[in-house]
Amino acid sequence: MPQADQPTGTPLTDDELRTLDAHWRAANYLAAGQIYLMSNPLLTEPLRPGHIKPRLLGHWGTSPGLNLVYTHLNRVITARGLDAVCIWGPGHGGPSVLANSWLEGSYSETYPDVTRDAQGMAELFRQFSFPGGVPSHVAPEVPGSIHEGGELGYSLAHAYGAAFDHPELLVACVIGDGEAETGPLAASWHSNKFLDPVHDGAVLPILHLNGYKIANPTVLARLPEPELDALLRGYGHEPIHVAGDDPHQVHRALAAAFDEALDRIALLQRTAREEGVPERPHWPMIVLRTPKGWTGPAEVDGVQVEGTWRAHQVPLAGVRENPEHLRQLEAWLKSYRPEELFDADGRPSADVLACVPPGRRRLGATPYANGGLLVRDLPIPDLDGFAVPVDKPGATLHEPTRVLGGLLEQIMKDTAARRDFRLVGPDETASNRLEAVFDASGKAWQARILPVDEHLDRHGRVMEILSEHLCQGWLEGYLLTGRHGLFSCYEAFVHIVDSMVNQHIKWLKTSRRLTWRAPVASLNYLLTSHVWRQDHNGFSHQDPGFVDHVLNKSPEVVRVYLPPDANTLLSVADHALRSRDYVNVIVAGKQPCFDWLSMDQARVHCARGAGIWEWAGTENGGEPDVVLACAGDVPTQEVLAAAQLLRRHLPQLAVRVVNVVDMTRLLPHEEHPHGMTDFEYDGLFTADKPVIFAYHGYPWLIHRLAYRRDGHRNLHVRGYKEAGTTTTPFDMVVRNDLDRYRLVMDVIDRVPGLAVRAAGVRQQMADVRTRHEAWIREHGTDLPEVADWTWAS
Amino acid sequence: MPQADQPTGTPLTDDELRTLDAHWRAANYLAAGQIYLMSNPLLTEPLRPGHIKPRLLGHWGTSPGLNLVYTHLNRVITARGLDAVCIWGPGHGGPSVLANSWLEGSYSETYPDVTRDAQGMAELFRQFSFPGGVPSHVAPEVPGSIHEGGELGYSLAHAYGAAFDHPELLVACVIGDGEAETGPLAASWHSNKFLDPVHDGAVLPILHLNGYKIANPTVLARLPEPELDALLRGYGHEPIHVAGDDPHQVHRALAAAFDEALDRIALLQRTAREEGVPERPHWPMIVLRTPKGWTGPAEVDGVQVEGTWRAHQVPLAGVRENPEHLRQLEAWLKSYRPEELFDADGRPSADVLACVPPGRRRLGATPYANGGLLVRDLPIPDLDGFAVPVDKPGATLHEPTRVLGGLLEQIMKDTAARRDFRLVGPDETASNRLEAVFDASGKAWQARILPVDEHLDRHGRVMEILSEHLCQGWLEGYLLTGRHGLFSCYEAFVHIVDSMVNQHIKWLKTSRRLTWRAPVASLNYLLTSHVWRQDHNGFSHQDPGFVDHVLNKSPEVVRVYLPPDANTLLSVADHALRSRDYVNVIVAGKQPCFDWLSMDQARVHCARGAGIWEWAGTENGGEPDVVLACAGDVPTQEVLAAAQLLRRHLPQLAVRVVNVVDMTRLLPHEEHPHGMTDFEYDGLFTADKPVIFAYHGYPWLIHRLAYRRDGHRNLHVRGYKEAGTTTTPFDMVVRNDLDRYRLVMDVIDRVPGLAVRAAGVRQQMADVRTRHEAWIREHGTDLPEVADWTWAS
Repeated sequence: MPQADQPTGTPLTDDELRTLDAHWRAANYLAAGQIYLMSNPLLTEPLRPGHIKPRLLGHWGTSPGLNLVYTHLNRVITARGLDAVCIWGPGHGGPSVLANSWLEGSYSETYPDVTRDAQGMAELFRQFSFPGGVPSHVAPEVPGSIHEGGELGYSLAHAYGAAFDHPELLVACVIGDGEAETGPLAASWHSNKFLDPVHDGAVLPILHLNGYKIANPTVLARLPEPELDALLRGYGHEPIHVAGDDPHQVHRALAAAFDEALDRIALLQRTAREEGVPERPHWPMIVLRTPKGWTGPAEVDGVQVEGTWRAHQVPLAGVRENPEHLRQLEAWLKSYRPEELFDADGRPSADVLACVPPGRRRLGATPYANGGLLVRDLPIPDLDGFAVPVDKPGATLHEPTRVLGGLLEQIMKDTAARRDFRLVGPDETASNRLEAVFDASGKAWQARILPVDEHLDRHGRVMEILSEHLCQGWLEGYLLTGRHGLFSCYEAFVHIVDSMVNQHIKWLKTSRRLTWRAPVASLNYLLTSHVWRQDHNGFSHQDPGFVDHVLNKSPEVVRVYLPPDANTLLSVADHALRSRDYVNVIVAGKQPCFDWLSMDQARVHCARGAGIWEWAGTENGGEPDVVLACAGDVPTQEVLAAAQLLRRHLPQLAVRVVNVVDMTRLLPHEEHPHGMTDFEYDGLFTADKPVIFAYHGYPWLIHRLAYRRDGHRNLHVRGYKEAGTTTTPFDMVVRNDLDRYRLVMDVIDRVPGLAVRAAGVRQQMADVRTRHEAWIREHGTDLPEVADWTWAS
Repeated sequence: MPQADQPTGTPLTDDELRTLDAHWRAANYLAAGQIYLMSNPLLTEPLRPGHIKPRLLGHWGTSPGLNLVYTHLNRVITARGLDAVCIWGPGHGGPSVLANSWLEGSYSETYPDVTRDAQGMAELFRQFSFPGGVPSHVAPEVPGSIHEGGELGYSLAHAYGAAFDHPELLVACVIGDGEAETGPLAASWHSNKFLDPVHDGAVLPILHLNGYKIANPTVLARLPEPELDALLRGYGHEPIHVAGDDPHQVHRALAAAFDEALDRIALLQRTAREEGVPERPHWPMIVLRTPKGWTGPAEVDGVQVEGTWRAHQVPLAGVRENPEHLRQLEAWLKSYRPEELFDADGRPSADVLACVPPGRRRLGATPYANGGLLVRDLPIPDLDGFAVPVDKPGATLHEPTRVLGGLLEQIMKDTAARRDFRLVGPDETASNRLEAVFDASGKAWQARILPVDEHLDRHGRVMEILSEHLCQGWLEGYLLTGRHGLFSCYEAFVHIVDSMVNQHIKWLKTSRRLTWRAPVASLNYLLTSHVWRQDHNGFSHQDPGFVDHVLNKSPEVVRVYLPPDANTLLSVADHALRSRDYVNVIVAGKQPCFDWLSMDQARVHCARGAGIWEWAGTENGGEPDVVLACAGDVPTQEVLAAAQLLRRHLPQLAVRVVNVVDMTRLLPHEEHPHGMTDFEYDGLFTADKPVIFAYHGYPWLIHRLAYRRDGHRNLHVRGYKEAGTTTTPFDMVVRNDLDRYRLVMDVIDRVPGLAVRAAGVRQQMADVRTRHEAWIREHGTDLPEVADWTWAS
């Protein structure tokens, strides 16, 4: 092991060294015990096959390193009276974090059945990676965690999210050298350009180089040390290197490193806060290089295990069947000298507990990692102050997201002192027409600012970086530590975070079952610059499938809204921002859009989630001949235009117009809390009349939601079918057969008896479409009659 | 502009300087012309509003920088006789790449209607970002491109993919400073640890710092130069910095930088190839810092535009309406002195063309960017040599992916000399049980190798890095330049590349319409370590939704296969590896799985895509009472076990077993080339009998595929419904109601008349499930009768 650049100074007394090592050994013992033991937790009997778990599942390799960091964090938290959380990037190290939580007592406080004694230790071991027990990762079940370690890449972004607007907080973040190869992690290093030393807490990255992933060396561990050092300095950090495989030497070096790092952080914060130094700090970080599976079996069956990828999961396999492995396991466990670490009742000794911080300073007991304990209701002003006046549907146009921008500006203003609301987006806040918020807060920016720049602010709460991953990761960390936020994103590119939102939904689903986890603010998406209005970006920017993606997930968590105009967007956003423990997906346009509903009407309509727009249809109290349904701003416009064409050309036809805002209303009520009963569904859509449904996204989603309904066989859906290019707004709907003329043709084709009676009208509609195609090819613009259309007749 | 560290030497003669600048000015003129002009392309008349496009769409800001790079690449390609491709990361710079392709003649050769004269120039301008014309990005329509620039982040990974196994090729890659903030790009820098200087070509990254994104400064452009330099050296590069806003000075500096970089590349390659130096080279790269929108309007309406984010798209808006803007546009266009650049017929002058390379060396004419011209059929051996013998269904077990590993090993061996096949995966090749390939090729690795390491090889063609983004990006680049490959991935985490595969599918869909683009090898996924067998990883590793995601996309491109056993996996993989222009998604398990079909049977079954397994059912020639359908290995096992239970307990019931391998067979044949006719569908599933469908993934996918069928109302689907944790294999299917006992209960509930008659059997089934729950809670293992089950009775 290279020993370069070790921090100097020996702050540890012999006593401290002894007790820190005791804590570390205890944690190592407990981590190994969880992987292997069903009973005999204290090895009071000779180890027998019957004590061993029937299935050996878990990850040993990363555990000793995490235990080391936990131990040393305990020391500095206690010594300095810190408020701290730690993000455990190598999240497969569940055994480690569980072990430490049990040692410090927070585990037993959270789960009283798992007592801090021999019986509780046995349960701690048995439940690990056991059916009905606890996962092998640092999951929501683990006290003190806000970061599921199953999918790698997001630890550092989560750490920054936790630190924003928590000036008193230290966020340690252990980054595994495997995880460091992922894209999101690689981008996260530059988060330090967005960390305000005045209003934000500190992030202390601890890059743990144990050298190996599942089956390969890691890239960063194999860089020559000067190259790695240059990289980390290029990321804007001052690295402190600690390396070794001698425990006492590493304890000393790591303690000195923590002291050096925390002294430096304190100095940087003090300078910025007292003297207002406008220079981006170069924050310290620690590089910790220790062997994978350190202190585990050095060799197994003649091959090296400790210090190699072979230590990744279970270093000794087949222990029940292989007496030599059983013997090796016993020797390994005894090497920690458990009799020194635990008393006869299995309680940790005073030495082991010497470093543990008190009460809520313990990493497993901090309220910062149970954000629902900290979250306050967001001050949301009365929507009437931001609503657009609508005396008559379709008479005026507004850009919905710009209207929403007014509301967000006010929220941003009203949280100026509290600092618990942030808006994140990948360089698109202005493009998405939310720039009113800049009157309340600038954009967070710690790098150089030039005179030509606008809205950059060292203390800003609008976060813009060209990385959807970072927007998502920051926001997740921010929400899970008790704050609020909104992510505005181009609709197509939110797929970049598909896998991240999977994990967040899974986290929330699990958290909701844990009574000790208090509800946190929902993760709110505003998806705009949507599929129908990619006039100059074209095909690559067209994908409405995020809705499909999230609707595969747990219905108790997922909500999807498609407000058709400005006031409904306000109402939906208001609801989303007040809610807890959801993922709310709001899809809304930024382009001028007809105003259909007054604010009062919008409130009622959004509360219902779906409803008949009587004023748009031609029913007269009886059953309709056909239902025109719509969801999304552009489909709503086309359906209303189609309804108007029908009113003009086929006045005797009874047309019902239904608008759906809340997509989950379409699901059966047994499948989703918002789902309609069949009685409600039939009341809107009928059980037997043709329904022409114009939907914002992929048409089959509607079938997937409604397939159990009686009326499903009469349901005909139009939507986006991957027919896209750089073209005009109306040409897009024509290419995808979602245009008003096609919808009228669909009605004629599907209402019994109309095909013959309305053949002439049908031909007229087809003719307009043909004329459109020729016009657009020549002029490059939509037909004037389309461009100038207003709904009101 | 800082002028630090400019390369020394002045290789340019005055003649060269003049002609390079002429080429650059011509390209700038043409880029601006595309954004603005409908007619009067050579400004032979005074500019009038009628000459201006009705909608001004496009991105000027990045274009001058791209034009500069294209110009200088022309010079060095010509001077050195290079084979080169360029990846244009700032892909919104479509006007630039189109302009250069037109100048060099490759555009007119590809699109004969767009001639290299005034008339063609007019058409080049008109079609840009025009309905029915060409997109504003570097899209498939652009000659010489293998990289859609609409979604940012993948340029450098694509560049490496193109360079692998093309030892003679130079791959230049322009990385915008916006794109550089994305995760995938940030991770891509470390690709140089995987580039073999002997068998691979060179990648020359050109980091273009124009300082701004859409609305913000960029992180990298605002780093102090030493910090940026440290970062790039930390990435393993030797950066050459070029900065300025004086064209002649920048021409000189950039020419010198290219010469220095290419000299160094040549030296590194020569050394490695002739002397076999085993040291990872520190490859050169260029940092080019020039103003955004350089040479465009410096100020508009009193505010600075050139050199700011305001130059990002259209620097002068409202030109038709605003005479001052019209005047400014004319002055801007004339500043390039078009009369010197084009003759009276609009043909580029000799000066402009002086740097253009000949024939297929032109960037827009290189066959490397039209990989279908280079691709050769993969040598795929006879599958019988790898198949498992199956005399009787369900009598033996094999790990399907391990069996596939044998085939892949042989292909790897048979391409050892050709080097046109690679296997990529995020550190999971062995975990996914494909490690047989290591007998044919090691894992690519250029960093330090230690004695303890296994299978690392400086010349390896198995690519492992813990980044799904890099796996995908490398493979895309590799395929699009004419080679073959397979991406093996944990099923859940392939969602990380959802957005990347969107773009690749869109690319292929568009390419298929372009007759000049020859078909390339398909992008093949092997998704394994799937949702049902996350015994120790649990909930975070469970997501079968990638299939849903890709099935939203163009049916002409997308194929999805769920082979139920080892031999069917071989057959499906064989088909996928031979195919062209598809994205093939294969979902298959790595755990021991019953062998159902012999190789011959597997071939027939996979060719049909779905079929009745007569041997598993109890039909006797007549109509069945119920259909048990299955797709996926675990569902197939449970359906066959259910069929066996039914045979035993309800022997008089006529049960049909249908297995589906090719999911798109379920679609209507009008919707997908593989879709069944209703006649075929009813022949398998009946039109009116209950169908209990056990599906691998989210159950509603089957409804989404089959909703138009007559039999849909009788279709009852079981699948994964987000009920997951760390548990045993059988407990997973119980939790999701996919287990054999539940399927039998479903049959009893749904076959008319059975509910009463088979109430006892139903109760027995329910009892086993209850017993299972108790057993597993106590023992942590599956019920012995489940664990030991074999199909054959």
